[in-house]
Amino acid sequence: MADPVQPADDPARALARAILRDARHGALATLDPQTGGPLASRVACALDGADLLLLVSDLSQHAAALRADPRCALLLGEAGPKGDPLAHPRLSLNAVAVPEGKPARRGAWLRAHPKAALYVDFADFRMLRLAPRPSFLNGGFGRAHRMTPDDLGLRGDQAARRPPLTCR
Amino acid sequence: MADPVQPADDPARALARAILRDARHGALATLDPQTGGPLASRVACALDGADLLLLVSDLSQHAAALRADPRCALLLGEAGPKGDPLAHPRLSLNAVAVPEGKPARRGAWLRAHPKAALYVDFADFRMLRLAPRPSFLNGGFGRAHRMTPDDLGLRGDQAARRPPLTCR
Repeated sequence: MADPVQPADDPARALARAILRDARHGALATLDPQTGGPLASRVACALDGADLLLLVSDLSQHAAALRADPRCALLLGEAGPKGDPLAHPRLSLNAVAVPEGKPARRGAWLRAHPKAALYVDFADFRMLRLAPRPSFLNGGFGRAHRMTPDDLGLRGDQAARRPPLTCR
Repeated sequence: MADPVQPADDPARALARAILRDARHGALATLDPQTGGPLASRVACALDGADLLLLVSDLSQHAAALRADPRCALLLGEAGPKGDPLAHPRLSLNAVAVPEGKPARRGAWLRAHPKAALYVDFADFRMLRLAPRPSFLNGGFGRAHRMTPDDLGLRGDQAARRPPLTCR
């Protein structure tokens, strides 16, 4: 059987970047620390330059899951109220969640989520960055594309592992 | 720390059942057969009596994932265009996907998804039923509830395992 998933092309890259830019929330898949089974939960997100951020409560099921195993997948892109839900484009972003300092990201978060001013400073809310892995864009029926971090315009997984520059 | 998740109560049951009744699509979390990591993808769904159904293409990533491990989680409930996305109710349905005969469910599927008439009869599209496991309702900030299959009004996992009646 022919592989139904195509490499990225320019229209797919533009569509994926528009989904990332517009996304304010998504469905996060994580692993249950007890069973290794899948979990699904809603999270808020925001794009800050080349970084996709999450703000999560330590009390949430997904925060506990990500502490045990940082691998996750985030489904982005609204289906809209009309037509076949599978005809609407969506991005399945595979990623690893890495901790981010909250003070440096606070302003970007509040620009995307003004109502989060009520709780962004609570001690149990932490900022995470999703370091992307090879992902999938589904642009509608028969329009599936593999997407690298570069295709998505996101800072990749390697950057998260690279040691910080030391100056002297 | 006190458990932030409460048992179900009548308002929580009514809210979860309304989400199930209204849902036409959701975000499905499955396990990558190669890595055991989480995957997230959009699926169409429909409630048929006490059964939540999916119609999936064999060509999809989640169909391959469910063939390898039928455990899944389905996030249901739209965030809506306004306000904080985390203030909108949503159901995290933990489940096992079990095969269903397509002919008996075809009518119910097309009532929920008229546009699926274009492909429901394709041989690579299969019907699945989500046999629920203990799940979570998040009714908004600070309103998380554990939900049993009975709380959800769904036919449970046990029914899927019970041997068929034999008459003689």
